[in-house]
Amino acid sequence: MRDDLWHISGYPFIPGHEVVGVVAKVGPGVPHSCAMVGMRVGVGWIKESCRCCQRCTRGEDNLCLSASSYKGLIVGRDSKGGFADYLRCSADFVYAIPDGLASAHAAPLLCAGITVFAPLKRYLRPGMRCAVVGIGGLGHLALQFADALGASSVTAVDIDASKSKEAYSLKASSFVDWTVFSAGTSQCGAPLFGAFDVILNCASASLDVAALLRALAPGGTLIQVGCPGGDALMPVPLLDLVFGQKQVVGSIVGGRADMREMFTLASAKGVVPMVERFPLSQVNEAMERLAQGLARYRIVLLSDEAWRQEVRGSEGREE
Amino acid sequence: MRDDLWHISGYPFIPGHEVVGVVAKVGPGVPHSCAMVGMRVGVGWIKESCRCCQRCTRGEDNLCLSASSYKGLIVGRDSKGGFADYLRCSADFVYAIPDGLASAHAAPLLCAGITVFAPLKRYLRPGMRCAVVGIGGLGHLALQFADALGASSVTAVDIDASKSKEAYSLKASSFVDWTVFSAGTSQCGAPLFGAFDVILNCASASLDVAALLRALAPGGTLIQVGCPGGDALMPVPLLDLVFGQKQVVGSIVGGRADMREMFTLASAKGVVPMVERFPLSQVNEAMERLAQGLARYRIVLLSDEAWRQEVRGSEGREE
Repeated sequence: MRDDLWHISGYPFIPGHEVVGVVAKVGPGVPHSCAMVGMRVGVGWIKESCRCCQRCTRGEDNLCLSASSYKGLIVGRDSKGGFADYLRCSADFVYAIPDGLASAHAAPLLCAGITVFAPLKRYLRPGMRCAVVGIGGLGHLALQFADALGASSVTAVDIDASKSKEAYSLKASSFVDWTVFSAGTSQCGAPLFGAFDVILNCASASLDVAALLRALAPGGTLIQVGCPGGDALMPVPLLDLVFGQKQVVGSIVGGRADMREMFTLASAKGVVPMVERFPLSQVNEAMERLAQGLARYRIVLLSDEAWRQEVRGSEGREE
Repeated sequence: MRDDLWHISGYPFIPGHEVVGVVAKVGPGVPHSCAMVGMRVGVGWIKESCRCCQRCTRGEDNLCLSASSYKGLIVGRDSKGGFADYLRCSADFVYAIPDGLASAHAAPLLCAGITVFAPLKRYLRPGMRCAVVGIGGLGHLALQFADALGASSVTAVDIDASKSKEAYSLKASSFVDWTVFSAGTSQCGAPLFGAFDVILNCASASLDVAALLRALAPGGTLIQVGCPGGDALMPVPLLDLVFGQKQVVGSIVGGRADMREMFTLASAKGVVPMVERFPLSQVNEAMERLAQGLARYRIVLLSDEAWRQEVRGSEGREE
């Protein structure tokens, strides 16, 4: 968004699309169940939709057909994000944060979380074998959600083998180095041909699509959520797609109902993002660390007040 | 298959993968419900599967995981097709032809029919807007099946505008020339951006994937059934796939349960292939006509006896 790779940014803009805060003020006519002053709530990437098109009325407001809904993006041409003291948002697009879920853990669920939860819920049935490619901000949550949704096995795949140990702590049942995976075997050399029912590709780099498709069982689904800017093409091998009856699908965040289900599941199953905390005043250092791929796995910026509480709290507290 | 484009042919081979005949002999232990002498039955492309892998036990025997199942292809390395007086086949892969469905009309359903019926049944829900691209052997059946399955509209798309009139008689609700379609409008100039929930691409030529994807509504599905030989790649625009939450899927014939459901639906709704009849002795003329793209829309070869009956019957008969 900062570099306008998707051509929907506007300058000057205020970033921040995974926002948690406390309701300071409520407009007239807002039902108490949506938002009350003092309620801890979250706001995601989308904070507006038309509410009356075919998609909105189906609960797929993330696919709203109204062109004006782009204006509802929390970080876009006409909309401001959460790197701020206050944020104004339609009460319809505000989500109550469950008690017991720390604000810094709730925030990454509002985009990274919903981005992987929604397609997994759509395509992953209990008992299926799942692989998550690219263990970063999205992938480290996908491992946990795939497990929570009942996958019989969850394989973490990454180009950086040093993530292996963390992957296991994030509910992966095995780890495979991307180089090994793309050659068609698991870490111990067992063939991976047709080994997965669902592969979630979180890597934004353009990976070897043929290798991903080969690793899918007949009838399997490759979910693409990572998306570089520009006119990138995904070269899908036609013979494998048709003869293997495979699906290559895209997915973009999720609807409001998905968002609520995600928070319920995350609370029930203990899905917790792994985050690094920075005070808002160190936003530039944080952005730099993110750009270098060093974040493990999501960076959360805290307001000055929250940061002071954090520093005080960390003296003698175990997390 | 004749030119081994899929690398699964064996020579010399006997073609013919849409076969209708009368049971001449039944092996020991075959239940009467499967096959009795004198029963009129059909045989499709697949006449064997392992019956015990995960896919077979789910009723997806067309996706059988056993490598040996390729040997069950009716036209393949180790198997002979229906351009013959007799054919031997496992009783499990024989389908009763409903009374009232002419043999020459039943035959094309056994591959062309099931190839379009199975994915439409999987992805097309009643009320959806469907487009069928490529009105040939597969496409002319897809128009009828899409209508029978409850599509709210069925748009026929072809590069040959002379098929327009026939398309309407095949249950299409509109016709769009491919050149117009790929430029993003309907025949009368209305925009086609996001106009379809399901697009079934029956064209084996590699078409403009970006144009097909653009014509899909958010959340829509592009089904690919046409498949050229070799290592063809399908260049899928990533941004549209992800942001539009679209699905690009392959499909390969169907399982045995699909086959039976298809015959039931075809009987109930009057799905009838448009065929040209040739005697088996003129097979080379028929193959030549097919290669030139002149068949409207499927050619059926009749045995000498059936052909004599046909010629006698056509004197004074209206079809």
